Amino acid sequence: MGSPMTWRATVLTLFPDMFPGPLGVSLAGKALASGLWSLEARDIRDSATDRHRSVDDTPAGGGPGMVLRADVLAAAIDAADVNQSRPRLLMSPRGRPLTQSRVVELAAGPGPLIVCGRFEGIDQRVIDARNLEEVSIGDYVLSGGEIAAMALIDACVRLLPGVMGKLASGTDESFSEGLLEYPQYTRPQEFEGRTIPETLTSGDHARVAAWRRAESEVLTRARRPDLWATKSRQTGTKSTTDG
Amino acid sequence: MGSPMTWRATVLTLFPDMFPGPLGVSLAGKALASGLWSLEARDIRDSATDRHRSVDDTPAGGGPGMVLRADVLAAAIDAADVNQSRPRLLMSPRGRPLTQSRVVELAAGPGPLIVCGRFEGIDQRVIDARNLEEVSIGDYVLSGGEIAAMALIDACVRLLPGVMGKLASGTDESFSEGLLEYPQYTRPQEFEGRTIPETLTSGDHARVAAWRRAESEVLTRARRPDLWATKSRQTGTKSTTDG
Repeated sequence: MGSPMTWRATVLTLFPDMFPGPLGVSLAGKALASGLWSLEARDIRDSATDRHRSVDDTPAGGGPGMVLRADVLAAAIDAADVNQSRPRLLMSPRGRPLTQSRVVELAAGPGPLIVCGRFEGIDQRVIDARNLEEVSIGDYVLSGGEIAAMALIDACVRLLPGVMGKLASGTDESFSEGLLEYPQYTRPQEFEGRTIPETLTSGDHARVAAWRRAESEVLTRARRPDLWATKSRQTGTKSTTDG
Repeated sequence: MGSPMTWRATVLTLFPDMFPGPLGVSLAGKALASGLWSLEARDIRDSATDRHRSVDDTPAGGGPGMVLRADVLAAAIDAADVNQSRPRLLMSPRGRPLTQSRVVELAAGPGPLIVCGRFEGIDQRVIDARNLEEVSIGDYVLSGGEIAAMALIDACVRLLPGVMGKLASGTDESFSEGLLEYPQYTRPQEFEGRTIPETLTSGDHARVAAWRRAESEVLTRARRPDLWATKSRQTGTKSTTDG
């Protein structure tokens, strides 16, 4: 499955059959089949030690749901993590929100070990003892970490060398300059009485670039004042480039 | 596929084979099999009209990638959307960030129509003409909207009546009160020299509740000053309850 240098995602989950799932199709799937990255989904339950292969128990202090045991998960991590220099992530709504800049970092490295939570949560002691970096894909709660892991992996894989090719550079899209992407248009020239903005069909590259820049800024200010504020604070230190 | 009242997700995608994928397993999968919700993945390409079944074209004004055509996507939406009162979502990093409160709203409704983007983007005119609500699952870029749609659907489905049952209420977790969830512990009592905090095994429910509340607050202030600031602004209007 690829050379020793291939970017690799190791996923610890109670549902290894979910993988590769959507990651086995389309852009990520073609790259996986070509050996541009590799994926290993490992069953946490294989590290259970009792006859019932149990992995969870009731929360200390009471409450709903079940908590994944520290000893079982630690054993699963230790069995999987042959290269201790890899980032060790835990998908969790309690984590630091994932950003495109963190995705760029993760894509540039050897590839992460990713723990997918289930049940009510994971025993805090394994998070501490194995130094897991809690990562959140957004401010909502999923039934488990698997779809979150897929989102993180997909975001990384598209940035790996050779995956997108020349068709899309990854440099002219949302967040690449702290702005949301400008509106796109394509043929037909008229759709239900709506036409493509004249600037875009003018053939004047400078006007097109200026229009797109202005649209990105208007959209970002309107929809994401938080991003716009961050962008504005950086204006003194970073020059802006159009197109 | 369930009664007329069943919560229903209709997904428009170029990769219908990705579905149900992870949504067919575990909590969401069992609920799907039980008829507690239903899923329809429709191929946008079925609405192409030319002999090559093409769905995209080059961006007006130039640039990398391909743009999904307004006329093709509009035809796909019109063919799918028999109930026009359903929310029509477009998964896009340009959208409004998804929150747990929006998930709660969507779960309480009839279920959304969800358009999954691919390529460089989607012609703006179909977004405008079909009044698509752009939704972002986070500030990073995916290769397409499919995994984002899965995240949104999974978040909704777990809240549907009968899906989680009594095991987890959805009321004592991250974001349910604008706070991140407190740390969890379970047996064994000692793990690599680390013990469960004494309060949690004290049997004193009031002390446990106070400890959890304090831990949630400390964690939220440290990791998510943005959430904490929102929470603090609401303190005057909303009483806080422990446990």
